[in-house]
Amino acid sequence: MTELRLGIDIGGTKILGVLCDPADPGEPVAVLRAPTPGDVDAVVDALVAVIVALRQRALELGHTVRGIGLGVPGVVDRLGVLRGAPNLRCAIDEPLRDRIEAAVQAPVLIENDANCALWAEAEVGAGRGAADLVMVALGTGIGGAVMIDGRLRIGAHGFAGEPGHMVVERDGVPCPCGRRGCWERYASGAGLALLAQRAVQGADVSGPGPTGAMLVGLAGGEPTSIRGEHVTAAADAADPMALAVFEEFARWIAIGIGSIINILDPELVLVGGGLVDHSRHYLHRVGELLPAEVLGAGRHRPTPVVAATLGPMAGAIGAALLTGTAQRLR
Amino acid sequence: MTELRLGIDIGGTKILGVLCDPADPGEPVAVLRAPTPGDVDAVVDALVAVIVALRQRALELGHTVRGIGLGVPGVVDRLGVLRGAPNLRCAIDEPLRDRIEAAVQAPVLIENDANCALWAEAEVGAGRGAADLVMVALGTGIGGAVMIDGRLRIGAHGFAGEPGHMVVERDGVPCPCGRRGCWERYASGAGLALLAQRAVQGADVSGPGPTGAMLVGLAGGEPTSIRGEHVTAAADAADPMALAVFEEFARWIAIGIGSIINILDPELVLVGGGLVDHSRHYLHRVGELLPAEVLGAGRHRPTPVVAATLGPMAGAIGAALLTGTAQRLR
Repeated sequence: MTELRLGIDIGGTKILGVLCDPADPGEPVAVLRAPTPGDVDAVVDALVAVIVALRQRALELGHTVRGIGLGVPGVVDRLGVLRGAPNLRCAIDEPLRDRIEAAVQAPVLIENDANCALWAEAEVGAGRGAADLVMVALGTGIGGAVMIDGRLRIGAHGFAGEPGHMVVERDGVPCPCGRRGCWERYASGAGLALLAQRAVQGADVSGPGPTGAMLVGLAGGEPTSIRGEHVTAAADAADPMALAVFEEFARWIAIGIGSIINILDPELVLVGGGLVDHSRHYLHRVGELLPAEVLGAGRHRPTPVVAATLGPMAGAIGAALLTGTAQRLR
Repeated sequence: MTELRLGIDIGGTKILGVLCDPADPGEPVAVLRAPTPGDVDAVVDALVAVIVALRQRALELGHTVRGIGLGVPGVVDRLGVLRGAPNLRCAIDEPLRDRIEAAVQAPVLIENDANCALWAEAEVGAGRGAADLVMVALGTGIGGAVMIDGRLRIGAHGFAGEPGHMVVERDGVPCPCGRRGCWERYASGAGLALLAQRAVQGADVSGPGPTGAMLVGLAGGEPTSIRGEHVTAAADAADPMALAVFEEFARWIAIGIGSIINILDPELVLVGGGLVDHSRHYLHRVGELLPAEVLGAGRHRPTPVVAATLGPMAGAIGAALLTGTAQRLR
């Protein structure tokens, strides 16, 4: 009989639950998926249902569940209450942890999802062996997490690890956060779409350079409908315009990662999030562009920028693993 | 008889040495100044002479010297060798620590000057009581230092704490570091001069708005000769153009500090460096502008941004204090 750890990652659209054997947490022994409901009572019910089902599954496998961890898409305060959470607004200011603990009659660890993902990568993924590292999670926006001396750092108010809101272009593209020119406006999935829309609209269709024909076609004929997935699809087909957009995208990523390195000089930068699945189109180029963005590059080995390896399960695995550590976040 | 600590801060133009009583390090019992020579042998000789003289002074006061610390304007590697040091180029790649230790027959701690200054402020200055804080030192450029959990953080290669080289304006003003649009091009003394030159050159001298007459006059009639001190002098005289330049300057400072907070969420941000003497012209306004630059502002008390209080002696005092700690930087 093994004491398994239970981890859940709740996002804006789906809930992912895993059971991990501490001896091999990178390969969950059970995985459960459910949609994320739209109101907070239903969210609590859904999370409790996932826990109950995974506990049952553990029993069937002849194991027990020792720790329960929950990764959430937002900032968690010291009382386990979700504060900023743009993709799970219904749960903001709710005592999520207390409500789940009362229902399942067991302690629940609750933590920001990017912190969970970084923890998992540091334990059993691409960050293994590193103690000072930063994760940038390139998705619709850019999430992030910071580990220093082997500990996750959430900051004085729990708001650390938001590199997507560094300003890289004063008076640049407006960001939902209220600023302008935030890094995530350029170096995220939304940024990839924006860069492609701009490139297509600026293309000289009569000239010898790349045209946006394939991108516009994929977007149903409307340049302003181009999304990140159209760019990756066109790049997979070696469309010159899509490749040019990825070159620009890589440059924006390098600018932001360079700024992070100039502040923290980590051993390693991990690139995670949904866009890591398309890292073949930009990550190598980021590595080439990065030295020019880093103070003192040339005086030491370049800081590696590597793709996270646990994929979409990193958050849930990390939530499970955090239950078994002395890591005190709050 | 007290065991005093000896601290030295070497800059591009001057050397400042202090003797500190650990019981009241904020008020050095002796201070010694010397010019910084132009070649490395003379630099070593000058530093040794300062140490010898301060040891002698300690003896005369009936005390002994227990620790010797040296703050340097650059990055120091694990062997005590100065690497990047734009304002002390003659000493780059020299085994400064070993040469001084051999001459004075005592261990010497060597550390980046901004780290020394932050340590001093955290121990006996404006950062007392805080464990997670960032210093931005606004001088000709922008230096910086990061403390997390009460420990200075130098990063994997010693290059942490360089927020001046975050990019805040892609394709912006060229920086000597090789990038464009680095924060220190706008929010430093050099930046203040640049903002003033731009404002004066863009001023409509026939319109009702402020003109650059006072600034140009202070600069000897040549707009491109306006320097930071001309702007502070004109602002002291309530010149409308200088006040407008400081408004813009405060905005640039707030943008960069906002980005730092979004990454690290420190308890406190200290503003040090030479420009702290003129903080009355911008620091209050930075505090007003900052919430709009910080993710989740409004969900917690604003992060205080406060002026360093130890002034130009912070580096030397910090070098002295670091000799008495278990702080292991390298």
